[in-house]
Amino acid sequence: MRSLEPGGWAVVVGAGGGIGGALVARLAEDADMAGVIALSRRPGPASGGRVHADAIDIGDPTSIERAAARLAGLAAPIRLVIVATGMLHDGQIQPEKSYRALDADALLESYRINAVGPALVARHMLPLLAPSGRSVFAALSARVGSIGDNRSGGWHGYRASKAALNMILRNLAIETRRRTPELICVGLHPGTVETGLSRPFQRNVPGPQLFTPEFSAARLLAVIDGLRPEQSGSVLDWQGETVPP
Amino acid sequence: MRSLEPGGWAVVVGAGGGIGGALVARLAEDADMAGVIALSRRPGPASGGRVHADAIDIGDPTSIERAAARLAGLAAPIRLVIVATGMLHDGQIQPEKSYRALDADALLESYRINAVGPALVARHMLPLLAPSGRSVFAALSARVGSIGDNRSGGWHGYRASKAALNMILRNLAIETRRRTPELICVGLHPGTVETGLSRPFQRNVPGPQLFTPEFSAARLLAVIDGLRPEQSGSVLDWQGETVPP
Repeated sequence: MRSLEPGGWAVVVGAGGGIGGALVARLAEDADMAGVIALSRRPGPASGGRVHADAIDIGDPTSIERAAARLAGLAAPIRLVIVATGMLHDGQIQPEKSYRALDADALLESYRINAVGPALVARHMLPLLAPSGRSVFAALSARVGSIGDNRSGGWHGYRASKAALNMILRNLAIETRRRTPELICVGLHPGTVETGLSRPFQRNVPGPQLFTPEFSAARLLAVIDGLRPEQSGSVLDWQGETVPP
Repeated sequence: MRSLEPGGWAVVVGAGGGIGGALVARLAEDADMAGVIALSRRPGPASGGRVHADAIDIGDPTSIERAAARLAGLAAPIRLVIVATGMLHDGQIQPEKSYRALDADALLESYRINAVGPALVARHMLPLLAPSGRSVFAALSARVGSIGDNRSGGWHGYRASKAALNMILRNLAIETRRRTPELICVGLHPGTVETGLSRPFQRNVPGPQLFTPEFSAARLLAVIDGLRPEQSGSVLDWQGETVPP
């Protein structure tokens, strides 16, 4: 990460996911970083080398606050926070194919995980980022969270929660620009990646467009590396192209 | 409402609010409509003339479903549904001035009222709209729900919930266009209106830009009257101008 001030920590929230795990692996090899804090619901038994594992539950505000508090004592500054969590389906929730499937509890749960969780990570971790020099706060968004780009409809709860996340990221960019203009806040569209999130929906994705987590993570880190200050508040895809609101 | 098929009912959800009440009053005088169903949390004691009052609680999915079920027996078709509810602040919740004020419960409550409620009204009332001839489903959105137009930040929960609502409206437009191409779904920005919602924030609004509910309602109905099919899925302001996503 040549664009970030060297010697800082990277924090990956959602390190147990496919993309999150690949981000941790790649960042751990980056000699420009002090190391990686890998936060996940069930952190591995041991931390070692350049990776320090710790616990976070993106659905639990207290867990997020405590995870952030434990980062406050790091010797080197934090330069990069990536929120790599996200929920499209779980045991109870399936993405809606029609408005006739809209359900209050499912809508609220998607919002809680995809928008509220990242917002709370920002609340508690943005103050930990180094106040000067280039730092980045990024969250995985999705192209289907673009209202302007929405051609096919459906997936109401997921789409709506990602649109809301994109608004919150824009808000974070506007606010942080005033005091810490070198801090960049962005959403990232990772492409369709071979993970549990996309697995039920991969049939419709042409083979070459279904990425491994490793490929997507490498692309996203290259995008972060090339970020320009005026891109703060935007959503960028794995190619670095802007996804419209 | 010359653009709607004549002789149909209008349904206003949130008739107890400033804009909702003014919409009911104006629609009741419209000889092209069969009359108005005025739905609110605490409906007036008597219905009379061309207004039929009934109960709905936008925060209660069962209440929404039951209110819709009671509309299923109307003799004339429903041509217009306007969701005029919305929450910016209440006893506990104040709009955030900084990301440091982000709170999980407040974010979820804004979403529940501003996005989930209108989504459930759509779920249960879109099937009641006449299947052919011009009909309109509209919900009050807000310019601050535009990500592209966001210059000043703040109000995270309100902005995010309105961006999510705009996504849901776009989804409704895409889905209904397939089977009922004469049905138009839109979000409406009413301007800053002298109501309880805007009262704490009116100081910053120049006098001529602070509307009475009657003025805003008249403008919004004129916008609805002039809707074109290709505008379905958009947000329009009180002047009929498109608000970008």
